[in-house]
Amino acid sequence: MKKVTVVITARASYSRIKTVLLHLRKNVLIDLEIVLKASALVENYGSILKYLEDDNLKVSYKIYSLFNTQDISFQVKTTGIGMIELSNYFRSSEPDIVITIADRFETIATAIAASYMNIPLIHIQGGEDTGNIDNKVRNSITFLSDHHFVSNKEAKTKLTSMQVQSDTIFNLGCPSIDLIDIANKKEINSEFLYDSYSWSGEKVDLDKDYIVVMQHAVTNENNSRGQIEKTIKAVKKLKKPTFWFWPNVDTGTDGISKGLRFFSNSKPDFPVTFLKSLGPQDFLRLISKSKVLIGNSSVGIRESSYIGLPVVNIGSRQEKRVRSENVIDVDYNCDEIYSAIKKQLNNEYYEKSTIYGSGKSGDKIVKQILKILGL
Amino acid sequence: MKKVTVVITARASYSRIKTVLLHLRKNVLIDLEIVLKASALVENYGSILKYLEDDNLKVSYKIYSLFNTQDISFQVKTTGIGMIELSNYFRSSEPDIVITIADRFETIATAIAASYMNIPLIHIQGGEDTGNIDNKVRNSITFLSDHHFVSNKEAKTKLTSMQVQSDTIFNLGCPSIDLIDIANKKEINSEFLYDSYSWSGEKVDLDKDYIVVMQHAVTNENNSRGQIEKTIKAVKKLKKPTFWFWPNVDTGTDGISKGLRFFSNSKPDFPVTFLKSLGPQDFLRLISKSKVLIGNSSVGIRESSYIGLPVVNIGSRQEKRVRSENVIDVDYNCDEIYSAIKKQLNNEYYEKSTIYGSGKSGDKIVKQILKILGL
Amino acid sequence: MKKVTVVITARASYSRIKTVLLHLRKNVLIDLEIVLKASALVENYGSILKYLEDDNLKVSYKIYSLFNTQDISFQVKTTGIGMIELSNYFRSSEPDIVITIADRFETIATAIAASYMNIPLIHIQGGEDTGNIDNKVRNSITFLSDHHFVSNKEAKTKLTSMQVQSDTIFNLGCPSIDLIDIANKKEINSEFLYDSYSWSGEKVDLDKDYIVVMQHAVTNENNSRGQIEKTIKAVKKLKKPTFWFWPNVDTGTDGISKGLRFFSNSKPDFPVTFLKSLGPQDFLRLISKSKVLIGNSSVGIRESSYIGLPVVNIGSRQEKRVRSENVIDVDYNCDEIYSAIKKQLNNEYYEKSTIYGSGKSGDKIVKQILKILGL
Amino acid sequence: MKKVTVVITARASYSRIKTVLLHLRKNVLIDLEIVLKASALVENYGSILKYLEDDNLKVSYKIYSLFNTQDISFQVKTTGIGMIELSNYFRSSEPDIVITIADRFETIATAIAASYMNIPLIHIQGGEDTGNIDNKVRNSITFLSDHHFVSNKEAKTKLTSMQVQSDTIFNLGCPSIDLIDIANKKEINSEFLYDSYSWSGEKVDLDKDYIVVMQHAVTNENNSRGQIEKTIKAVKKLKKPTFWFWPNVDTGTDGISKGLRFFSNSKPDFPVTFLKSLGPQDFLRLISKSKVLIGNSSVGIRESSYIGLPVVNIGSRQEKRVRSENVIDVDYNCDEIYSAIKKQLNNEYYEKSTIYGSGKSGDKIVKQILKILGL
Repeated sequence: MKKVTVVITARASYSRIKTVLLHLRKNVLIDLEIVLKASALVENYGSILKYLEDDNLKVSYKIYSLFNTQDISFQVKTTGIGMIELSNYFRSSEPDIVITIADRFETIATAIAASYMNIPLIHIQGGEDTGNIDNKVRNSITFLSDHHFVSNKEAKTKLTSMQVQSDTIFNLGCPSIDLIDIANKKEINSEFLYDSYSWSGEKVDLDKDYIVVMQHAVTNENNSRGQIEKTIKAVKKLKKPTFWFWPNVDTGTDGISKGLRFFSNSKPDFPVTFLKSLGPQDFLRLISKSKVLIGNSSVGIRESSYIGLPVVNIGSRQEKRVRSENVIDVDYNCDEIYSAIKKQLNNEYYEKSTIYGSGKSGDKIVKQILKILGL
Repeated sequence: MKKVTVVITARASYSRIKTVLLHLRKNVLIDLEIVLKASALVENYGSILKYLEDDNLKVSYKIYSLFNTQDISFQVKTTGIGMIELSNYFRSSEPDIVITIADRFETIATAIAASYMNIPLIHIQGGEDTGNIDNKVRNSITFLSDHHFVSNKEAKTKLTSMQVQSDTIFNLGCPSIDLIDIANKKEINSEFLYDSYSWSGEKVDLDKDYIVVMQHAVTNENNSRGQIEKTIKAVKKLKKPTFWFWPNVDTGTDGISKGLRFFSNSKPDFPVTFLKSLGPQDFLRLISKSKVLIGNSSVGIRESSYIGLPVVNIGSRQEKRVRSENVIDVDYNCDEIYSAIKKQLNNEYYEKSTIYGSGKSGDKIVKQILKILGL
Repeated sequence: MKKVTVVITARASYSRIKTVLLHLRKNVLIDLEIVLKASALVENYGSILKYLEDDNLKVSYKIYSLFNTQDISFQVKTTGIGMIELSNYFRSSEPDIVITIADRFETIATAIAASYMNIPLIHIQGGEDTGNIDNKVRNSITFLSDHHFVSNKEAKTKLTSMQVQSDTIFNLGCPSIDLIDIANKKEINSEFLYDSYSWSGEKVDLDKDYIVVMQHAVTNENNSRGQIEKTIKAVKKLKKPTFWFWPNVDTGTDGISKGLRFFSNSKPDFPVTFLKSLGPQDFLRLISKSKVLIGNSSVGIRESSYIGLPVVNIGSRQEKRVRSENVIDVDYNCDEIYSAIKKQLNNEYYEKSTIYGSGKSGDKIVKQILKILGL
Repeated sequence: MKKVTVVITARASYSRIKTVLLHLRKNVLIDLEIVLKASALVENYGSILKYLEDDNLKVSYKIYSLFNTQDISFQVKTTGIGMIELSNYFRSSEPDIVITIADRFETIATAIAASYMNIPLIHIQGGEDTGNIDNKVRNSITFLSDHHFVSNKEAKTKLTSMQVQSDTIFNLGCPSIDLIDIANKKEINSEFLYDSYSWSGEKVDLDKDYIVVMQHAVTNENNSRGQIEKTIKAVKKLKKPTFWFWPNVDTGTDGISKGLRFFSNSKPDFPVTFLKSLGPQDFLRLISKSKVLIGNSSVGIRESSYIGLPVVNIGSRQEKRVRSENVIDVDYNCDEIYSAIKKQLNNEYYEKSTIYGSGKSGDKIVKQILKILGL
């Protein structure tokens, strides 16, 4: 029996590891430990505690490392204290292998703690390419990691070209894709949605056409307030029933949040529901019925490709990520955004693409972990 | 006037940046700030405070981040607290550019703090290759950095091959090479050495033949005690007058130190002087007169190449570093070590090599910094 | 010239030190440094940055020590990291004397940092008595402090009885009392209030009768939600126009906040304005026109005694504080609360009491500081 | 079954709790957890890991909080990080009651963590009186604690006079006294001593007359080097065989250590053995045969009173502690020290005093803990 420790730092990461966790839990050779850290634990930013509970996954340890500030030092301090607490935990729990996911700033704490303590480290979703500080973080983690489970062919090519040893790179797809088939065995309805989740604004009828917006701050750009205003203006012109998600915790979030609060207080004359977060499955159900997804979330690139969902992707945040034909890219420009939405609204759903996996990634990843552990 | 902040975390790093600091200090367009951190401040491990004072370089801030433990969590905790304190300092001092040096574990704190706070970062000596955790740290820092000042041609090739943007890589040589010509304008003599530095054991006559040993722990290998015993045995068999340096602070240091203490207490029947550290210049003067340098210090690979000094390099620590013909590589094996020393003792000094620079790196680096800053 | 460093950790503390700061700033013998820390910097909980700016007081340093969590470890971690950052600041700035205020959990960080670094420490408002963890903190700080500036006679007696050296205790009154006379040179009006501050709910007419509620969590009692519900019920029965303040950051705050959010969402059928915080002066103006103040804030005990404002004080939080005749104490019981409010609504304002000072404390305190510093 | 968590931060504290631990371990109603923290874990300053192992006591958790520096910020930072790590541990382990011992600076971390997390706290050895910062720390901890187990009648009187609730104060004696009877069932001999412990200098014959010196830095006095020189001069004049202990970790330790190193290097012309530390029992055996104990250790006041050992107590460190007739107090003055030693050398052992307990404290304390826990 070997101990596999998975450190999850944010809501988005949970979707990218959930089916792996479910497979690990079932395996009698594995002692699974789940550590929650940073924004994964903070209600404001979408704590995932409830989702783990719903999925019957036990949390072994919690690291409350997020500082309550948007000061420029925020990310560094949160990472620093997270590292310290993680090192204490690893010392006590002695994992045989550690898994870190994707590229949020806090994830480098996991990579440093494991590598400095000589614990083998798997990095999920290295080799991708985006347009901001995440790139630095992701590549930096790659070079602290021992095994690289990438989510698409291009990512494997990229890592190989960076001189990462090719026999340590495995293209196993993205586990978030696995969730789509599972989720869509069931539909979401308005009553359930508005009863189960905290929301504000006006209700949207799920049985009619609606759109979904999800736009985060770009951490190395300063004008998050200006950026969100362009999107707000375009959506206001459109007047379609809209689900709008609050942004992730990040430097610049305040700008986005202020813009949205102002918009919300202005009482738009068409229905807009503001949501903090949904459970991963309900989220997929919601976008799977949406006419179009707008913003800069990676979901627009990744999950949406498998769904075939029309997407309007704004700005630089997903700049270099591999994408399928379902995405129209636009700049922070009200007219561009508006026209792209209009165009997508006229489109049917696109054909399903498997560039990010074919729905079996959780299973494939666990098999590879067992191989690494010699089980 | 632009603010250049240089963060130094260890004695070895000081040699690799000193001539840069001297050139920066003289430049009226530059506001130079020097931050000392971690082992650079701890007397046991070679505090560099005195050397900076001797060189008339002002320290702007001190970060006492080193924990007093050799526990497995030590490096992570020291890095974590160092990051937190550094983020506070950067926030107050607002550097225009930050410089981090080489690959010790604490240096990643500088890289994370600068990159997460959107401060341009120069990395000195990326792209080299060694045989342990330093490799992970060095490459990880590379991908957090904006500008790469490498010390040799192979390093530039390496970074390019890792997909680092080639117009951000500059082969400017290693500033530690600059010190050799400066140092050797003067000789070191026994009286001065034994008066100026703390030492133990027996005195060695500097006017006669002697050897120098400098062997550090290899952080991802567990057997530091066993490793140092092989070297001790070989040197005991040799019975040459010896200068022996205590190891750097690192996981595993205790094993080396215990071995040396035991050796020292056994009162060897030939003169052995144990030294904690010398000033960078005196150190160069000492090895420049040595018959051979033994151990696993990077000095054996780098500075020694320019001096032409015969070197016996033990084990994996410098495994993949580019080297000149002056180095004989051996395993942790008493006989191999002994034979290699014997062979080098019979050799004259080798021809001067400029693979690590031609003694003008400080000047070249400052010119490149000015260019980056648009000065 | 001597350096006086004042560390402020919360909005409430600012009122208790503001006139001291204004007098210190004017004094040419004093180099005043103001450090903001913890909740004093967090917008959610009433950042005081704007008030200092309005009062033309310069902030020398900011310590973002508040963690974003309500976990049981929250107060300890916030205190711990605050101490570390404060020690770095004190080391750089070298104060001649440090001032810490009152009894919030973060203030012990200031006391430990100063006393462990051998910097003389003045504690403002020791010797008072309340009903929860604040008591432990306040007395603990007393014994780390060198000089004790208490706000009332009973506090001096109390400290003397605790064997604090009597020549280090000075009853100089509470500077928050000074603000009342200053504030009441001007009136507050509805237009200004609703324009200048963030609020929610319905507007209250300031020219008609209204009440003010301000109830915080009691950190060592678990039932904050239950407690606030009693107050809500009583106020709902009363149906008077109401200003209701959101609670301080503290363990248990979530319970209070949830109760208030639920109340607010239920759209009460009488006007209730929910406020985060007001500027110290505007706050005094608001309560000085209120018919009654309800809750468990120390303002009800302290400032209200000088104003003569009728107060209904609920529960254990202010249990043992010295009070004037203007206060009716009640338990967490809807009927008791309701009857007490009714009774106070029938009362005129009480006679002004000077138990907490006569409006000259700022001046007196600065004179005592000068004496201590030998100026 | 209730969980009792004991946090030990230094070697000296272990003696004052050891018999309590042995009794707790045997009790089937108690789940004993021992946490080691700060200097209790650092070899240089007398790690107690080995002693716990010898006594068959299991360590549940280790907190490596000591920074490797003597900078003025050292004590604050060590306390701050210790608090953070302790809060994480308490959160996971959920003690029913926590025990903190005596008055070293790190112990306030335990007191804050427990009290801020609402865990009942027992303080061992409050109410005593010494001449430096320890006084501040001790009294500060008293006011964070719920139960006070003092070691002598005067301490109880003192706490009562400080308005500590008298039904929370129990005079149960000092468990370190219990160790004396246990230790002295066996003698220590030279061979065992010099084989078992690390030492330097010259051997002393344990069967002949000898003296013992143990002098620590006084943290709020700056002249530790000057102070130790007086003692060294007096002992050099005396020329008696001497055991000399290295000082505790504390601000100012470097001064003491430098003085001792210089003295040691000067090769005194009478036998002096320098010791880092002995096991608690062996230490008692050594002083129980000594002619006189010199310095400023609390052992001279406390344990020595029960042994009747002649003591020369130097300076302010033990100034106000209750003492028996066996102690002669002197100033930092070579002549005074010398004369006092001479006088004590002519004295026989004094009569046994029980002011600090009669050898049954461990048992009494555990009984009181059980009562508090309702067992």
